Amino acid sequence: MQAGDALPELRTTPDRYLTVRYAGASGDFNPIHIDEEFAKQVGLPGRILHGLWTMAQVARAQTQAGGGPHALKRLRVQFRGMGLPEQELTVTGVVHEVRDGVAVVHTVAEQGGTQIIRNAEAEIELPA
Amino acid sequence: MQAGDALPELRTTPDRYLTVRYAGASGDFNPIHIDEEFAKQVGLPGRILHGLWTMAQVARAQTQAGGGPHALKRLRVQFRGMGLPEQELTVTGVVHEVRDGVAVVHTVAEQGGTQIIRNAEAEIELPA
Repeated sequence: MQAGDALPELRTTPDRYLTVRYAGASGDFNPIHIDEEFAKQVGLPGRILHGLWTMAQVARAQTQAGGGPHALKRLRVQFRGMGLPEQELTVTGVVHEVRDGVAVVHTVAEQGGTQIIRNAEAEIELPA
Repeated sequence: MQAGDALPELRTTPDRYLTVRYAGASGDFNPIHIDEEFAKQVGLPGRILHGLWTMAQVARAQTQAGGGPHALKRLRVQFRGMGLPEQELTVTGVVHEVRDGVAVVHTVAEQGGTQIIRNAEAEIELPA
């Protein structure tokens, strides 16, 4: 990896019941994630994705690029928008710099033209 | 326990998100349990309870009466109606007969006047 390199783009479409499964897996049953009617009542377009699920997709883009989970040494994200089920999510990243065997990658997760995670910064350890 | 004895009545009201949690716990994510809109589209009044959750309440009535899970030796139920979240469920049982240290209990689970489980038969081992 060199500064300016793009990460392989990650595309994934959370299905209609992803948030229900993620609620069970994570223990976060906030109704904004699992109750369409409730979500609309509080002004959302519908049930929204768990932020940590979206963050996990950002992490996955890094670990795929780095050769495995061991390579991801640090990840920081900013949650900036609401993700929705049944819309394709695209994670893109660019290597910002390489120093001391570590690539610093800047990443964005975007859905339907809206950046739902941005200013994400990851450190990926490069093979010696 | 003697023939004719009633089990202590069990009353429980599954909350709005019981089926969502039970989907996660059981792995049964059938949309009739977790998707209000889908459930109505297929002619149901709304999301319905998992039958096995309701059966578990029948089992609970037996184990509470028998002094613990160890006492329940056999349980057979017939699913006869659809259970709904946010409606009180009542489980009632009557000892049908006692033979060889085992009470045979007949049980019904009812919600809003509808029997959703009936002809349930349990064998409860009595203390020696």
